[in-house]
Amino acid sequence: MVPLRSEMTNYQDIIEELYHKLLERKNVGEVADYIPKLGKVDPEKFGICLTDMDNIHYSIGDYDEKFSIQSIAKVLSLCLLYNKKGEEIWQRVDVEPSGTPFNSLVQLEADKGIPRNPFINPGAIVICDMLISEFENPKKELRDYIRRATNSKNIHFNESTAASERSNGFMNIASINFIRSFGNIQNKLDEVLDLYFLLCSIEMTCIEASQAFLFLANEGKCNHTGDTLIIKSRAKRVNAIMLTCGFYDEAGEFAFRVGLPGKSGVGGGIVSILPGEFSIAVWSPRLNSKGNSHRGMKFLEEFTSATSSIF
Amino acid sequence: MVPLRSEMTNYQDIIEELYHKLLERKNVGEVADYIPKLGKVDPEKFGICLTDMDNIHYSIGDYDEKFSIQSIAKVLSLCLLYNKKGEEIWQRVDVEPSGTPFNSLVQLEADKGIPRNPFINPGAIVICDMLISEFENPKKELRDYIRRATNSKNIHFNESTAASERSNGFMNIASINFIRSFGNIQNKLDEVLDLYFLLCSIEMTCIEASQAFLFLANEGKCNHTGDTLIIKSRAKRVNAIMLTCGFYDEAGEFAFRVGLPGKSGVGGGIVSILPGEFSIAVWSPRLNSKGNSHRGMKFLEEFTSATSSIF
Amino acid sequence: MVPLRSEMTNYQDIIEELYHKLLERKNVGEVADYIPKLGKVDPEKFGICLTDMDNIHYSIGDYDEKFSIQSIAKVLSLCLLYNKKGEEIWQRVDVEPSGTPFNSLVQLEADKGIPRNPFINPGAIVICDMLISEFENPKKELRDYIRRATNSKNIHFNESTAASERSNGFMNIASINFIRSFGNIQNKLDEVLDLYFLLCSIEMTCIEASQAFLFLANEGKCNHTGDTLIIKSRAKRVNAIMLTCGFYDEAGEFAFRVGLPGKSGVGGGIVSILPGEFSIAVWSPRLNSKGNSHRGMKFLEEFTSATSSIF
Amino acid sequence: MVPLRSEMTNYQDIIEELYHKLLERKNVGEVADYIPKLGKVDPEKFGICLTDMDNIHYSIGDYDEKFSIQSIAKVLSLCLLYNKKGEEIWQRVDVEPSGTPFNSLVQLEADKGIPRNPFINPGAIVICDMLISEFENPKKELRDYIRRATNSKNIHFNESTAASERSNGFMNIASINFIRSFGNIQNKLDEVLDLYFLLCSIEMTCIEASQAFLFLANEGKCNHTGDTLIIKSRAKRVNAIMLTCGFYDEAGEFAFRVGLPGKSGVGGGIVSILPGEFSIAVWSPRLNSKGNSHRGMKFLEEFTSATSSIF
Repeated sequence: MVPLRSEMTNYQDIIEELYHKLLERKNVGEVADYIPKLGKVDPEKFGICLTDMDNIHYSIGDYDEKFSIQSIAKVLSLCLLYNKKGEEIWQRVDVEPSGTPFNSLVQLEADKGIPRNPFINPGAIVICDMLISEFENPKKELRDYIRRATNSKNIHFNESTAASERSNGFMNIASINFIRSFGNIQNKLDEVLDLYFLLCSIEMTCIEASQAFLFLANEGKCNHTGDTLIIKSRAKRVNAIMLTCGFYDEAGEFAFRVGLPGKSGVGGGIVSILPGEFSIAVWSPRLNSKGNSHRGMKFLEEFTSATSSIF
Repeated sequence: MVPLRSEMTNYQDIIEELYHKLLERKNVGEVADYIPKLGKVDPEKFGICLTDMDNIHYSIGDYDEKFSIQSIAKVLSLCLLYNKKGEEIWQRVDVEPSGTPFNSLVQLEADKGIPRNPFINPGAIVICDMLISEFENPKKELRDYIRRATNSKNIHFNESTAASERSNGFMNIASINFIRSFGNIQNKLDEVLDLYFLLCSIEMTCIEASQAFLFLANEGKCNHTGDTLIIKSRAKRVNAIMLTCGFYDEAGEFAFRVGLPGKSGVGGGIVSILPGEFSIAVWSPRLNSKGNSHRGMKFLEEFTSATSSIF
Repeated sequence: MVPLRSEMTNYQDIIEELYHKLLERKNVGEVADYIPKLGKVDPEKFGICLTDMDNIHYSIGDYDEKFSIQSIAKVLSLCLLYNKKGEEIWQRVDVEPSGTPFNSLVQLEADKGIPRNPFINPGAIVICDMLISEFENPKKELRDYIRRATNSKNIHFNESTAASERSNGFMNIASINFIRSFGNIQNKLDEVLDLYFLLCSIEMTCIEASQAFLFLANEGKCNHTGDTLIIKSRAKRVNAIMLTCGFYDEAGEFAFRVGLPGKSGVGGGIVSILPGEFSIAVWSPRLNSKGNSHRGMKFLEEFTSATSSIF
Repeated sequence: MVPLRSEMTNYQDIIEELYHKLLERKNVGEVADYIPKLGKVDPEKFGICLTDMDNIHYSIGDYDEKFSIQSIAKVLSLCLLYNKKGEEIWQRVDVEPSGTPFNSLVQLEADKGIPRNPFINPGAIVICDMLISEFENPKKELRDYIRRATNSKNIHFNESTAASERSNGFMNIASINFIRSFGNIQNKLDEVLDLYFLLCSIEMTCIEASQAFLFLANEGKCNHTGDTLIIKSRAKRVNAIMLTCGFYDEAGEFAFRVGLPGKSGVGGGIVSILPGEFSIAVWSPRLNSKGNSHRGMKFLEEFTSATSSIF
């Protein structure tokens, strides 16, 4: 990919222009409401923050308001584990797009309990199982790792969101038992599910979310402290998985329209990166039929067109 | 993506070093033999050719020997059609990874006859159907388009290969009838299949194959003549589809290990590009369990590591 | 099963009473119209004929009008082949209910090209393939066998119906090619399809249809001539397959409500037998959502309740 | 079905002859060992008991030894519920054969959480859920109902077997959560699973098992006490479901070879009935590849041939 031309890097102008342009268009789609917490969010919230390699933020709208990042956090749990254990983790989770809606057990059955990739729910559950095997206090490790990535102490699990998800999480309980029936879970199922639902309960602002992913645009190094959060070759690989698997059954569409690695969550957030250039977080709660933020997808599509990255 | 550092662009040295390194390693996998033509190829053939933006070739081994490019040609038929008709083609074929082995009809059934992407067999068949609707002489248009891309008149369909594929192509005949039962084929099935099997019968050398894809690394323009073979935004999109869907059920693995858009064929060829930098073709007939060239995949993995492209 | 009590065998009274009762109820469902021939039938046709072991007919309504028996004929092609070749035919077709709508290829893929039973379309196609291997003139053999069963020369293939089915039979062409890709078809596909579509084109009246199945209630012997059409143990087995597989995805419902072996066709016909007692044919073209005659199913349910057969 | 001829009803002779004949043949297949309890059973156990309508037992071998009846008990839980609530239970469980191995979730997904029939695990779980909604003390009701059917107080749940099944029952926990995600479970999942695993833990001898099912051959009435355990029309329907769905993915094969309603369990037991004639229980722990008793299936096949029941 060629570098962005300097005359194009006036990120603030582009972001503001697109923000207002999209506000004028009809916003469509439903807010996720399978737990009350998510359903109560104002559907018209819209925030954007881009952080460049000089740690400068370009932002607009509701960029400084916390939202539930949900599945976006699955990238960070993967990085923590992958950095620690290396390539052996791919024995227990694959790196292929799933090709079916994100909750389907059919593919899991065909693949004998090996989830297709670490970003579908069953895959993230297996990652949590491996974190528990690896760390004495996986919950603390996970929180601290995310705080280091974000360079902020103000990152918390939302225990009540986690409890609410847990009490409605029948599909995920079905999944973990199904995977266990193939022998691909090694710890107590309740403990694994607790960690999984905590992971999904994390809240961030757009600023924090864009900061949290900046190391993946920076060869694995935290851009504030210089800490290596994940070695360079592995950062590259996490980016490849985001590119092919980051958007449920719309991964190809995102690669097609946006062309950048990214990850979405049902809370309406999307984080995406351009290696060597920036990390960007967008939040808008209305979801399209594939479960991704309607306005977030549109914004990123137009943003990459406007900034002319060839891909 | 950052540009390659100048001290790294000594492509010939890297290619030669990797070529010899891989020759020393055991070559594994089976040669496709579902038609006699493919089964008779010497399994130890190994050729490489990289063409850079100055049209300079860097090559080694059996780089100047014709091989059956098979599914690699599906990228070129897509470009011809997409350039002519634009975005409306996505009404009839999707852009999502398939998530199941390349011949499966299950997904096609779930998707009501809309193939998951233009590179699986059912998708390429629908592309051929649209080419027939679009052009008076689609066979000639296709051949001429590929000749223009390759800047060579020495590109031919192999009618005997096509006939041999045709007489064994029960799965493809099943597919086209299945798609037709959903209404997603508009021309005579025999005519569509004839074009499809001709498309797969094309033969190229590694030099020709790398030249044939160079326009996709050059914003859609032929690097010899300056002709626009496909407009820039569409070239970007074809590249995105190659990245997520170019390697059957191993697309994620390729994005993960190589990180470049590419397309493989059961003849053992792989073509891959780095936009703004180069197009590279590798040929080695032994296939891994996913149907991609074993040595070709290894070569490209080590090549991108050696040339340090970040993404 | 206990024999019917003599005071209950006044079949004519029961049939007439139920006929009028059902005529008074609203008739619902659509007539099959995927070929014009079927779509043009008067949807309110309603005929019944029961033939007992003394060859006496009890009938009412449109019992003497020809209709397209469609899939009902698959029982007769099975009998012809099974009688000739015996148990070896089960190497190539199974005897299990299909559990999925009658056209699905999914199950066929899972079962490696072995159709679940001889009454789903793929199974009947494999039976036709075996008939071609077995007989010099399978078309004539089939017609003559059915004429012997029916004890009538007035049984014909309807060539124009067959041609019409053929030109719309994309799913069946897909199926046969799919099965062929697994090696489970041995003759020319066109020849097999020709025989299959001819088989489905047969027309009978209710009288003829009830006569045609009477041998299956008579230990395999024609009740007029005493000819053995199929040996006793095999007749028993064909009846078992009708019981578990005769009604597409409604086989369990039919066993549950009616409890007799039977076979339905999309022309709105159903034939059912009570071994040692009778064969009955019902015709009413409106189909329920599972593809079986709405009124035919209701009639047979109430008929078996009224005649108190325990099971 | 014609009545058995009187000279054929010397059941004891036939049973003894077939017993010895089968003992001479090689016994094949594996004993279920997914829980230690089942795995420790002597694989060569072989017992038979037929009970006729005069309550006379004809038996041989290990007919008086308790074994784990497992899924056979699912017929009795269905009868208890169906007798109480009637036809409305079919809103929540279907009556169609499953067409896929007994543990598959694929079909359940396609059917939106409605199990295909009450004898596959998901179906029996939904029946347990309805029993809990219906009765104050469902465990006691179930035990008492089975004791009434068996006319014996010596019928117990085996709590340690149930606990052992529970701790290995990941697929069943997956199933219940999956069904719950579609809304088709109304009570606490743990409570439903407890009842389900208790149900499967019941132990009986062949004598008790044949007695327990005799009411289904007797129009729903207990043959000892005259009590109505289920009304006649519903007994007929339960028999129809046993005929089409009683043998996992081998239901068609059983209907084909034996032709009687029956139910098998992974403990190696099979119970089958001939309405108006008898109930028969066979026990032999080695299972064929479909999960049914190898020797039990053979015995019943030869037994029905020997007794000449036509259907």
